[in-house]
Amino acid sequence: MSENPESTQRNITEPSIMSGFVELLPKEQMIMTRMTDIIKNTFESYGFIPLDTPVLEKADVLLAKSGGETAKQVYRFQKGDSDIAMRFDLTVPLARYVAQHYGELTFPFRRYHIGKVYRGEKPQKGRFREFYQCDIDIIGNGRLGIVNDAEIVSVIYSAFSALGQSGIVNMGDFVIMINNRRLMNGYFEYLGIDNTVEVLRSIDKIDKTGRESVRKELTGPVGIPEDKADSILDLIEISGSPKETVQRLKEMNIENDTFRQGLSELETVCGNIEFLGVDSDHFAVNLKIARGLDYYTGTVYETVLKDHPQLGSICSGGRYDELASNYTKQSLPGVGISIGLSRLFYQLNEIGALDFGGVSTPTKILFIPMADTVSYTLGKAAEFRRAGIASEVYLNDGKMSKKMSYADKLGIPYVAVIGSDETQSGRFRLKNMATGEQVEISCPDEAKKYLT
Amino acid sequence: MSENPESTQRNITEPSIMSGFVELLPKEQMIMTRMTDIIKNTFESYGFIPLDTPVLEKADVLLAKSGGETAKQVYRFQKGDSDIAMRFDLTVPLARYVAQHYGELTFPFRRYHIGKVYRGEKPQKGRFREFYQCDIDIIGNGRLGIVNDAEIVSVIYSAFSALGQSGIVNMGDFVIMINNRRLMNGYFEYLGIDNTVEVLRSIDKIDKTGRESVRKELTGPVGIPEDKADSILDLIEISGSPKETVQRLKEMNIENDTFRQGLSELETVCGNIEFLGVDSDHFAVNLKIARGLDYYTGTVYETVLKDHPQLGSICSGGRYDELASNYTKQSLPGVGISIGLSRLFYQLNEIGALDFGGVSTPTKILFIPMADTVSYTLGKAAEFRRAGIASEVYLNDGKMSKKMSYADKLGIPYVAVIGSDETQSGRFRLKNMATGEQVEISCPDEAKKYLT
Repeated sequence: MSENPESTQRNITEPSIMSGFVELLPKEQMIMTRMTDIIKNTFESYGFIPLDTPVLEKADVLLAKSGGETAKQVYRFQKGDSDIAMRFDLTVPLARYVAQHYGELTFPFRRYHIGKVYRGEKPQKGRFREFYQCDIDIIGNGRLGIVNDAEIVSVIYSAFSALGQSGIVNMGDFVIMINNRRLMNGYFEYLGIDNTVEVLRSIDKIDKTGRESVRKELTGPVGIPEDKADSILDLIEISGSPKETVQRLKEMNIENDTFRQGLSELETVCGNIEFLGVDSDHFAVNLKIARGLDYYTGTVYETVLKDHPQLGSICSGGRYDELASNYTKQSLPGVGISIGLSRLFYQLNEIGALDFGGVSTPTKILFIPMADTVSYTLGKAAEFRRAGIASEVYLNDGKMSKKMSYADKLGIPYVAVIGSDETQSGRFRLKNMATGEQVEISCPDEAKKYLT
Repeated sequence: MSENPESTQRNITEPSIMSGFVELLPKEQMIMTRMTDIIKNTFESYGFIPLDTPVLEKADVLLAKSGGETAKQVYRFQKGDSDIAMRFDLTVPLARYVAQHYGELTFPFRRYHIGKVYRGEKPQKGRFREFYQCDIDIIGNGRLGIVNDAEIVSVIYSAFSALGQSGIVNMGDFVIMINNRRLMNGYFEYLGIDNTVEVLRSIDKIDKTGRESVRKELTGPVGIPEDKADSILDLIEISGSPKETVQRLKEMNIENDTFRQGLSELETVCGNIEFLGVDSDHFAVNLKIARGLDYYTGTVYETVLKDHPQLGSICSGGRYDELASNYTKQSLPGVGISIGLSRLFYQLNEIGALDFGGVSTPTKILFIPMADTVSYTLGKAAEFRRAGIASEVYLNDGKMSKKMSYADKLGIPYVAVIGSDETQSGRFRLKNMATGEQVEISCPDEAKKYLT
């Protein structure tokens, strides 16, 4: 470019990105990347395998089922003869993938997928048009044991516990809440109610608007008789420990097979969760959660932060009887959850729950050479790197204060200045940038005693 | 969906993806993910910090400079009032990002970015329309010391060494080759040649077409006098160790400042590389590499596999004087490289260089419970997971042979069958699926002795 004689007259294009899209500054991005790593590692510790599908799909395939709101939000365009749609979630591509590669997969197929999805929503605070989802799903071939639903709770528990213990997120306690759609549907059947989606949509609001408001909606627009509305409200307000809740549901002696099946599933899930090491403070049965607009058929999950309930569910999902009925006649039941990571990150940042002091550049030691020690210092850094200590050499000229300030700004925890004395003795001082303390060392093993 | 009485009559959409796009089966994806992790970890060990920018950009901003071939390949579309373009590399978004956030960044800005980019190229073997690039760049504010160019070689060396040592890729030896555009341009200046881009484009082909063919092109369509063409060809065929090459270039006593500056840069880079722990077998000066079509102004890099030169360069890059002259008047010199990971993966797979035996699901132990030991087994797996051993419980019914075959197919290295005897004794047998050997253990610490 410098070879171009016109470059000095070149027009400057104002750099900017589109509204509804986001990019982070380094300190934020480092936290975001660490959070992603933690979630990925948790998923892998349960044996979920990675999956990656194209961001662009054939529009007619991706949108085989979708209508209404979803279709309107999809980024869809033509290129050449292709009618292209950008994925709007990771579940539809999963369904397409499992149907397409059915014969080549080993079931149960347990996959995780962390990737960007696209929705042309009206931009608003904390809602993005491009955002990360972190999904896990377990897909059975024909059937999938209900104990898988308990394991999903344990994965959510492990992921948020690991985030909480990482020192980069101070989000306080969380609670994973479950319900069972079969149990709810069975109860509606038992009451002779058939507009279940409307009912679920209505009761989903109870924590926001209160019992009376929901009762009015149920008995008014939804058209439920008063006694039945009260029965529904009584049911969903059952509380207590998971065991107590299951016990109370049993004592209702509801004569309906769907209800009984749902209750039995709920009992099995609750019964296994304690063995999975999920702290009882972090798990609850909540018959109010319905996820009415989703296609779940059994267990449903929501996760809330105790200190920040206004954030809503930070991790949701459920059991579905047929994952891929649009793409195959194979019966592929599944259970899964999704963490909306971009939104979670944004919200945690907004409430001040990200600990920027706890994160730094990957670099552990910044080596600062003097003019005549550059080569030696490069070798020293290479030696430390080989020993597993991420190391960086400051390779620009400038005042020492500027070099120190570079370490400070990036949050590099240790600095070592290498002058000619150091190259002769082979020993140098490692300065802790937080405390100012210095220790003299010569090799990576010595350094490891001090590095945190 | 099972609630929908019409579901049995539902139309099935044939699942498929677009031509030029790729998705991997689990075994391949596991290797791809491990390769990505290794590259990411290498970049971080040098203190490069993560960056993530939107896949969708404002078309007028992203394409501020681009014309011709690039513009034609770009996925560009309208949504509402927005003229949108998908990124076609990670360098232009970096330039836009650095210009846009200039005041908020700490320089030198060292970032890595691993992400998908999009080019609507004619699909052909090994060329994809959506593919991963793994980029690092070091951006200076006003100036950037030449030693950074040596460090880049060291990063390439570390990344491919780590891939080679991982046991999942058998790609044999690689060589990182460098040249210096300033040296080349200075030599052309010295010879009084000004159509340097044409000359570079021509000599770039010499390894494919041979000296005579390039000579014909230079003296014919490119219009270089015979004696000068020979001088150029003699120059680029200089070979030997980096030191010898530098020495021979010095002995030419070329009276041109640009040449001298380029030679001095080349000498400094070569002189520092040995200190960086880069094995001399893996590094060469090659005056034939030109990267004529790119905007590099100093050092240029290419990396080839010794046993598979037909793959071409698997990692390329260079030094540019002005990264972001389209977006800012700030002078932002930089140096960087890119690994075209999707293409590399495809090529390595094609030549049989991926070791599928060396990779497995993240799971180290598959626990197989009997009907009455499910809860106990879930607890056991949770205990092993907490100790850092990725563990999975087989939670579906079925024959034992099917469960064993699940472990086999996924490449899970160890299996433990938990019956009621095991729950009573607290001890169980860990079966090595490769050798068939069994060892009796009770806790994660015992297991760690055997797990590889």
